[in-house]
Amino acid sequence: MTLPFEPADTGLRKTLFHIIFESDTRAAKIFDIVLITLILLSVAVVFVDSVPSLHARFGGAFYLLEWGFTLLFTLELAVRLYCLERPLRYLKSFYGIVDLLSILPTWLSLLIPGAQSLLVVRVLRALRVFRVLRLMEFVGEGRMLTQALTRSYRKIMLFLFTVLLIITIFGALIYMIEPPEAGFTSMPRAMYWAIVTLTTVGYGDITPTTPLGQFISACMMILGYSIIAVPTGVFSAEVIRSIHEERYSEEACPGCGHEGHERDAKYCRKCGTWLDEDTQDPRQRDEADGASQ
Amino acid sequence: MTLPFEPADTGLRKTLFHIIFESDTRAAKIFDIVLITLILLSVAVVFVDSVPSLHARFGGAFYLLEWGFTLLFTLELAVRLYCLERPLRYLKSFYGIVDLLSILPTWLSLLIPGAQSLLVVRVLRALRVFRVLRLMEFVGEGRMLTQALTRSYRKIMLFLFTVLLIITIFGALIYMIEPPEAGFTSMPRAMYWAIVTLTTVGYGDITPTTPLGQFISACMMILGYSIIAVPTGVFSAEVIRSIHEERYSEEACPGCGHEGHERDAKYCRKCGTWLDEDTQDPRQRDEADGASQ
Amino acid sequence: MTLPFEPADTGLRKTLFHIIFESDTRAAKIFDIVLITLILLSVAVVFVDSVPSLHARFGGAFYLLEWGFTLLFTLELAVRLYCLERPLRYLKSFYGIVDLLSILPTWLSLLIPGAQSLLVVRVLRALRVFRVLRLMEFVGEGRMLTQALTRSYRKIMLFLFTVLLIITIFGALIYMIEPPEAGFTSMPRAMYWAIVTLTTVGYGDITPTTPLGQFISACMMILGYSIIAVPTGVFSAEVIRSIHEERYSEEACPGCGHEGHERDAKYCRKCGTWLDEDTQDPRQRDEADGASQ
Amino acid sequence: MTLPFEPADTGLRKTLFHIIFESDTRAAKIFDIVLITLILLSVAVVFVDSVPSLHARFGGAFYLLEWGFTLLFTLELAVRLYCLERPLRYLKSFYGIVDLLSILPTWLSLLIPGAQSLLVVRVLRALRVFRVLRLMEFVGEGRMLTQALTRSYRKIMLFLFTVLLIITIFGALIYMIEPPEAGFTSMPRAMYWAIVTLTTVGYGDITPTTPLGQFISACMMILGYSIIAVPTGVFSAEVIRSIHEERYSEEACPGCGHEGHERDAKYCRKCGTWLDEDTQDPRQRDEADGASQ
Repeated sequence: MTLPFEPADTGLRKTLFHIIFESDTRAAKIFDIVLITLILLSVAVVFVDSVPSLHARFGGAFYLLEWGFTLLFTLELAVRLYCLERPLRYLKSFYGIVDLLSILPTWLSLLIPGAQSLLVVRVLRALRVFRVLRLMEFVGEGRMLTQALTRSYRKIMLFLFTVLLIITIFGALIYMIEPPEAGFTSMPRAMYWAIVTLTTVGYGDITPTTPLGQFISACMMILGYSIIAVPTGVFSAEVIRSIHEERYSEEACPGCGHEGHERDAKYCRKCGTWLDEDTQDPRQRDEADGASQ
Repeated sequence: MTLPFEPADTGLRKTLFHIIFESDTRAAKIFDIVLITLILLSVAVVFVDSVPSLHARFGGAFYLLEWGFTLLFTLELAVRLYCLERPLRYLKSFYGIVDLLSILPTWLSLLIPGAQSLLVVRVLRALRVFRVLRLMEFVGEGRMLTQALTRSYRKIMLFLFTVLLIITIFGALIYMIEPPEAGFTSMPRAMYWAIVTLTTVGYGDITPTTPLGQFISACMMILGYSIIAVPTGVFSAEVIRSIHEERYSEEACPGCGHEGHERDAKYCRKCGTWLDEDTQDPRQRDEADGASQ
Repeated sequence: MTLPFEPADTGLRKTLFHIIFESDTRAAKIFDIVLITLILLSVAVVFVDSVPSLHARFGGAFYLLEWGFTLLFTLELAVRLYCLERPLRYLKSFYGIVDLLSILPTWLSLLIPGAQSLLVVRVLRALRVFRVLRLMEFVGEGRMLTQALTRSYRKIMLFLFTVLLIITIFGALIYMIEPPEAGFTSMPRAMYWAIVTLTTVGYGDITPTTPLGQFISACMMILGYSIIAVPTGVFSAEVIRSIHEERYSEEACPGCGHEGHERDAKYCRKCGTWLDEDTQDPRQRDEADGASQ
Repeated sequence: MTLPFEPADTGLRKTLFHIIFESDTRAAKIFDIVLITLILLSVAVVFVDSVPSLHARFGGAFYLLEWGFTLLFTLELAVRLYCLERPLRYLKSFYGIVDLLSILPTWLSLLIPGAQSLLVVRVLRALRVFRVLRLMEFVGEGRMLTQALTRSYRKIMLFLFTVLLIITIFGALIYMIEPPEAGFTSMPRAMYWAIVTLTTVGYGDITPTTPLGQFISACMMILGYSIIAVPTGVFSAEVIRSIHEERYSEEACPGCGHEGHERDAKYCRKCGTWLDEDTQDPRQRDEADGASQ
């Protein structure tokens, strides 16, 4: 990842920049792990605080913890901005906005009571976890999945578009057939039902009551059950292609023309010819050496 | 796509034909996009008008909009028919019928009050969106998916047929076992339940109540959960084959005319002729060398 | 399919045997299609008769139809047995038992009132449809699917076995955690719930109510959502292998050793050598002919 | 499997060790099958005993059976420990703990009434079934599935991690939007709902009631319906690779010791040495021919 923010050139700012924005030194790695731990803890507090019974008993402690995290994250954001040459550019970036949003609600609650409920936004900070994955050698896996997703992107868009059309048409159909008493009171609600059915979620909060409505639902279920094969098939094919390409070179043997050599192959497995045409086969060099002696 | 309708040969009718039925000129592309936008807007009005609370507040505006769209679409259909040599053939085609159905309800509502509720049919016009996809380079993706679907068609039919048999047999079984009070009042309802269960939708509007009924349901669930592998596997295999076949060249053998050679083929696999017409077959060269010596 | 029943050698019996048990003559094909149509109609009558409102109105007609079908199927079974050398062996075969079971309930209802409700068994006769599929060129598709299923059989058994263990352990867990009031009154019911959850059916007739129970359910759902990949992956791989093997031969070119020739290839696509070592390359024969002249 | 526990060297202890811990002799196989049968029977008793109506009628018989099984399993554990050199190491292993836990509840019930309800733990003993699978030639299948799972492990972890993030974010969103009356009383409950929805289980015990909540649910359902393609695609690709790699030979190159050559390889792809030690490298033969001329 190239860093979109230039470091300031003072000594301290430079050091801080390396610790906060990079992850190749020991200090930087420790900073990343401590930060992620704090983020996960702060999210956990928001979670636990939302349970009425726990809020009643430990509400005070949670309030203090929340302020603690807010102060820490405010300090972190200040340092982040301090060590950058162009702090405004960071504030306008995705992570900058998330950083700001995750401390704002607590500060706002001093002015407007109740603003604290927006703290839920802090959950988004957990996205920073993807940064830590880099430390854990998950990069290769992620890159392959992203590559397969990028390649199947258009096909899956086309699939989702067809799904949307099916949902619209079936939603309209059921809206005409079923009485409003069954829950199909408007077309958007009928479409909500159609999505619940086609994706095989099946809450059962709205269900068809007439025989014709049940017949149409049944058709839709079998359709939804079958077409899941489309994105799965497309994505499978792309993952297989990615794995294959990662492994096999596309160059042919200069000796016999055999293709499909593994990337780490040095000699053709069919005729034993040296594959790299730009360099000399070490065996021939050895023989030449032997002959010249 | 070849156009099934011949254009009329007058100047104006020819120009209109090119704008309305083709999509290779700038004017034609603009026409397509404007039309799709109007269709989507008209569908949106039908949707929003179906919500009771919005109908109560904006019903009058929606009524006017509906008439506006109806007049526009009537004009469009008139122009479409005007610039064709055989307008009746268009009216009998799928899109012709959909065009007609999407304006008829509003006109009919002048005679029969309430006919307007059929306007939902206008949703089908959204299928015209597939035309616009052509503008957006989705053709290749669509063709590959359609090809894979066509190839797996028979296997998936066989699968659906087996699913239907399973549903019938399990539906009959549960109808014999469960009491009518549980909701299994007739065989068609038992089959509806079987489809809800096998496709893993699981509304829960009809559920088995006896231990034996629950045991049979459990078997059916595990069956439904496992056999989803069949269409997925079949379709995956076909997508992989389609991707694989992109490497087939479209050139015919100069010797026997055989087509469908793999891109890396050097000799025709049917008659052994050297495929690359620009260079000489190395075997002939060898023979020539041998002869000249 | 080899016929397990020997035909009797009288002229009439032989002719009847060919019509009823084979499907290669015109008369035999017509017999098959008429029989399947009658079977589907008789199943349809059983279905429609099970709907209370329709039974009340058309019960008499359905009763007559039922007797009509029973008489026809009895006659058919009699002719079947008549034209066989060993009729008892047929009666003991799967189709023989199904044939008998599908007429017995109506006859029994003369002695025991109510036996007619067993007519549902007639649904099994629909399995004869698989016979007609043979007429419709679905054999190849069916064979490939069956081959892929046979190959993945052991792996899918292992998967189902693991699923059963997961269900047992999670069922036992939730039985210990959840109170009986939530519906987890016995271990078999807890296992029923576990199957409903793992297969993502989710009726909602029994749902966990305690936080710990909901946490365990959530884990189970994510597990069930992920492991569906196992049978799908296994089956996909086998279908791909079947398609590949149907297409590519495993023999190497005698000229250059290149492998992966399509089954219909006559010459190596890499070096142009005649692939079939047992016969002579027609080109060489032509040349030889030319030389000898 | 290498045995982690050394057998004691007395004659009887050695014989018992071979019967109990190995499975290559007839006696050992019989022991395994008898043990598994007893385990499954004891689990069945726990199951059946948990049904209130059956407990009321046969509670006494079940009580006796439970004690019978407990005594048998206690005896078995004693013999197991007797024939080992280091019995404590076995008691600390996974199977040792499970063995102990499966007899403890019954013994404890003598001291503490009600401890028997923990007998459910006995279910875990069923895991020993995996041992019997070894007798049934399921090893190859299991190894291939395990290999494919190991290879896709990191990719599926990454997928599960992304799923967790999606669930957290959607859970937080719906918690802010929906009123507590709809059942979204706390953030953990909202996350439980999010898991029920994303995995397409769809109990319907908590469902969104506001239009915005239903819209967000609909998005989540379509997301959950589509991303199931990811683990399926990844696993499919790995199974295909495993099947593919069955064609790798296990012999090392006589030149450089490199392993993992494809079965059809003739030369080592690392050092170009002729792999088949029984015949001569055709290149050397050619050279030899050239030299002799």
